Amino acid sequence: MPTLRIALAQVNSTVGDLAGNAASVRRWSRAAADSGAHLVAFPEMMLTGYPIEDLVFRDSFVEASRRALTSLAAGLAADGLGELAVVVGYVDADGPARISSDATPGAGRRDASALLHRGEVVATYFKHHLPNYGVFDEDRYFRPGDSLTVVRLGGVDVALTVCEDIWQAGGPFTAARRAGVGLVVNINASPYELNKDDVRLPLVQRRAAEAGATVAYVNMIGGQDELVFDGDSMIVGPDGELLARAGQFTEELLVHDLELPGADAVPNDSGSTDAAKPRVEQEIPQDMAIDRSAVAGDLAPLTDRRDGGVADRVSDEAEVWSALVMGLRDYVDKNGFRSVVLGLSGGIDSAVVAAIAVDALGPERVTGVSLPSGYSSEHSKDDAADMAKRTGLTFRVEPIQPMVDAFLANMTLSGVAVENLQARVRGVILMALSNQDGHLVLTTGNKSELAVGYSTLYGDSVGGFNPLKDVPKSMVWQLARWRNTQGDPPIPENSITKAPSAELRPDQKDSDSLPDYSVLDPIIKGYVDHDLGRDELVAAGNDPALVDRVLRMVDLAEYKRRQSAPGTKISGKAFGRDRRLPITNRFREGGAS
Amino acid sequence: MPTLRIALAQVNSTVGDLAGNAASVRRWSRAAADSGAHLVAFPEMMLTGYPIEDLVFRDSFVEASRRALTSLAAGLAADGLGELAVVVGYVDADGPARISSDATPGAGRRDASALLHRGEVVATYFKHHLPNYGVFDEDRYFRPGDSLTVVRLGGVDVALTVCEDIWQAGGPFTAARRAGVGLVVNINASPYELNKDDVRLPLVQRRAAEAGATVAYVNMIGGQDELVFDGDSMIVGPDGELLARAGQFTEELLVHDLELPGADAVPNDSGSTDAAKPRVEQEIPQDMAIDRSAVAGDLAPLTDRRDGGVADRVSDEAEVWSALVMGLRDYVDKNGFRSVVLGLSGGIDSAVVAAIAVDALGPERVTGVSLPSGYSSEHSKDDAADMAKRTGLTFRVEPIQPMVDAFLANMTLSGVAVENLQARVRGVILMALSNQDGHLVLTTGNKSELAVGYSTLYGDSVGGFNPLKDVPKSMVWQLARWRNTQGDPPIPENSITKAPSAELRPDQKDSDSLPDYSVLDPIIKGYVDHDLGRDELVAAGNDPALVDRVLRMVDLAEYKRRQSAPGTKISGKAFGRDRRLPITNRFREGGAS
Repeated sequence: MPTLRIALAQVNSTVGDLAGNAASVRRWSRAAADSGAHLVAFPEMMLTGYPIEDLVFRDSFVEASRRALTSLAAGLAADGLGELAVVVGYVDADGPARISSDATPGAGRRDASALLHRGEVVATYFKHHLPNYGVFDEDRYFRPGDSLTVVRLGGVDVALTVCEDIWQAGGPFTAARRAGVGLVVNINASPYELNKDDVRLPLVQRRAAEAGATVAYVNMIGGQDELVFDGDSMIVGPDGELLARAGQFTEELLVHDLELPGADAVPNDSGSTDAAKPRVEQEIPQDMAIDRSAVAGDLAPLTDRRDGGVADRVSDEAEVWSALVMGLRDYVDKNGFRSVVLGLSGGIDSAVVAAIAVDALGPERVTGVSLPSGYSSEHSKDDAADMAKRTGLTFRVEPIQPMVDAFLANMTLSGVAVENLQARVRGVILMALSNQDGHLVLTTGNKSELAVGYSTLYGDSVGGFNPLKDVPKSMVWQLARWRNTQGDPPIPENSITKAPSAELRPDQKDSDSLPDYSVLDPIIKGYVDHDLGRDELVAAGNDPALVDRVLRMVDLAEYKRRQSAPGTKISGKAFGRDRRLPITNRFREGGAS
Repeated sequence: MPTLRIALAQVNSTVGDLAGNAASVRRWSRAAADSGAHLVAFPEMMLTGYPIEDLVFRDSFVEASRRALTSLAAGLAADGLGELAVVVGYVDADGPARISSDATPGAGRRDASALLHRGEVVATYFKHHLPNYGVFDEDRYFRPGDSLTVVRLGGVDVALTVCEDIWQAGGPFTAARRAGVGLVVNINASPYELNKDDVRLPLVQRRAAEAGATVAYVNMIGGQDELVFDGDSMIVGPDGELLARAGQFTEELLVHDLELPGADAVPNDSGSTDAAKPRVEQEIPQDMAIDRSAVAGDLAPLTDRRDGGVADRVSDEAEVWSALVMGLRDYVDKNGFRSVVLGLSGGIDSAVVAAIAVDALGPERVTGVSLPSGYSSEHSKDDAADMAKRTGLTFRVEPIQPMVDAFLANMTLSGVAVENLQARVRGVILMALSNQDGHLVLTTGNKSELAVGYSTLYGDSVGGFNPLKDVPKSMVWQLARWRNTQGDPPIPENSITKAPSAELRPDQKDSDSLPDYSVLDPIIKGYVDHDLGRDELVAAGNDPALVDRVLRMVDLAEYKRRQSAPGTKISGKAFGRDRRLPITNRFREGGAS
């Protein structure tokens, strides 16, 4: 059996940065060639970044992607890397025909994978299964492929597939079995969710069994807007064995030697029967066309053996912390901000955001501002200062009372209008510092308080990025305690242990207005993340009166927030898609509508 | 030939208000019965409102929709309206199985039409063609139907279809020809776009020819969040003749008598050939199942003749103005706001928004606030006061200088930070008035200035609804001039004729920073609405240097805005879907990426 050395390039990509992404492919291809690899695979849409959303409707963008692909092939050859087979994701189109966002859904555009060799595009494959749920809208953007691409490389038949193709039974993987391939390369831009690695491995195993072939699964890493890609690339044998696995949230090249059946040795389903392969229950699409091509030349001989190893998985807290740090770092760096600014109240939320920011950017790029009012306690001011001292971030104090007093002297305000005024003066100060010094403003509201509306629009909601937007309060405390066990503890113990308060009126406590977070968070999770109704939440064991109270709060908060600032939404899940609810919506759980 | 009296109920619906929508169906069914109609048709998703977005993922909501349908059938019978055939849109599902937003796209949910008679649901039909472009995401939400529903009513075979079914050749309309129906009822929630009525009539004509039958097209009216439905309901004969048409933006019942071929008289494609019908070029799906049922009893005899008439179309300005007024009124009323507040600068944008608000709500529900600074000209203050006097809206003056001075005394700010500070103090004042008095804050930035970023985040962008969000500046002037010709002119002539200025620094004019709106707007339209690239815009006759300048401004504005406030987007078209562009996006037209 031929031995193929394969490299999975688990790397970062930036939407729209075709030149930068191509340069990254050339750099990592050099590393792959240096390791002796015969084939290197890059993630889905590596050249364009992912997701490109409505950019796909611009002909100029799609043309730029196609040009970038051909010039990448030439560039690799010019680099002396022509003998390396490079699999890379990009965006293609059926022809020069113009479509617009109003046209038939997805007409013409392709989510594509190409194999480059000796300066040429040897083969292309168009993704079959277009996800259109959760964070995905690909039915809107792409036309599905309908044939399988198989490339013979050093005597081994290699099938190309893209991302969602591996989530669906039948289709390209059963066609790959019929084609008798030895290896399926699956390139991905698969966003992070908590414990998603628990789902991926069994999935890749099922598909390897279906194809009767080894599967090489490569995923992107890095943050892109509201998504984070976590890597978790792997190689799985036809018998389901995990042969090699990369880490999560690490940019790396996973190099592994595979002994693969030569093309002549692999029976395919149109030929002899194959009792050794696992049985496939799905109906096999006998009519899928198979486009075959071949890479010229023989495999370079290997003088050693490479095993990629199997990276360990980490704890939930470590996984979430890494995702938050990477998401923030890439948001800041990819958008070209030099620094961030945030309000430091002395409370747990802003302390955790500050710790994430310092881990992501270093203390010299983080400014924390204490914005005390007449209602701020001494310990609030002290804890904010302590946080700064522990982490080394730049600290400043901007008392808000003179500005608040100017409004109160000139307008007649009372009650919640006065509470909100304080939060909005803080927002104006942070935005003024942003305009003056170029900082990105970080928002610090956690998912629990956002869900129930314990927040001021245009006040503490001001900012471009909120690391805690999808983190429930219970998890905020969990993260803080975990982070404090990793080296020097950045977060003041007092910020973790004291009762949370918004400090917008004397002696205010969260518990005046909200249920305990330990009972609130499960209801929010069921209602917001899992679309459960009132009766289902009660059946799940939550107190009926509490369910009614929380659902009223969430409904009211959501509609008030969106009525007063369309486009402001809470998110369904960590790094997930925002719920898209109608703003005007009179439906109420419990049947009162 | 039997004569069928049909009523098209071109009515409003509110998302989630199942009880209110059902009550509306009963009220309008009473009116239809009083007119002697045999059949009344209501819009798509009349019972649930449209679009329901992620509400569809909640089982409790879908169950509520199904229950509302059966209790509506019973309620109509209890009202003595059991003999009237009522066609109404609602949401159905295949079974009680739970799905979530992460499940296979659209599993189980149906965009449905039902025919109710004598207290029963006689027949249901599930929409075949699910639009997934522009403002539509129906692939995400629904499973497509695969059979045609035909109901015999007084000897006439009537096919049920839903909305997008009429935008696609082939499918249910060719099946209707094969089934030999005399009438196709098509229920819609078709959002308004400028001149959409020019597209609809030829479309209905093509489909009537395809079906070889009369088509009754009924559309919703009213505003729902960022959409407006304009009505434009119509009846078209198999020869393409426009038999009757309702107005735009009017809630009305279009009642019209149709002489239709009895079921026994209509040849169908499985029987004899039919030379009289127009030829159909599309492939006819011979395998589509046809579910037939019948309404019991005979048609009540008619003692007179009813002709619905053909409503005239209005000018572009009248159409847009009606859409803006209806969109604002329904946003305010459906969300339960008693009143609105807006800043009145004396300029054209806020004057036009104030005029729209007064037309929508009456002057007693509109408060205009003059927010002068040290840079505000005398004419600005006078023009704002004049606007109030002309329309009778409530007027107040809140000078911003004391608050601005408090910030400047306590912080060291310069340049654009000081300009933005003024706009943000205005935003804080408007939000304080909103909190204190319960007003909805209206935003007044036009599409041109939003597109190029001539606006302050958390400043003049504050507010829950912006009637001009999708109206280019050129159209703002056009609307102002048009509105001033309709009765007493509400808008001060000076607001229309003076050079536009933000008045954030001495003698500032829009023209200091922006190209003339007459050359700016076409470039924005091409780039934002139509996804044209740089070269296409130049080829269309725009000045190359100007194209480069404007594209840079739009890109910069869009990314700055979204970097600093995710979720803030500009819109592709009037009442259309926002562009969904990646926040981090390094692609630049002209190839510099």
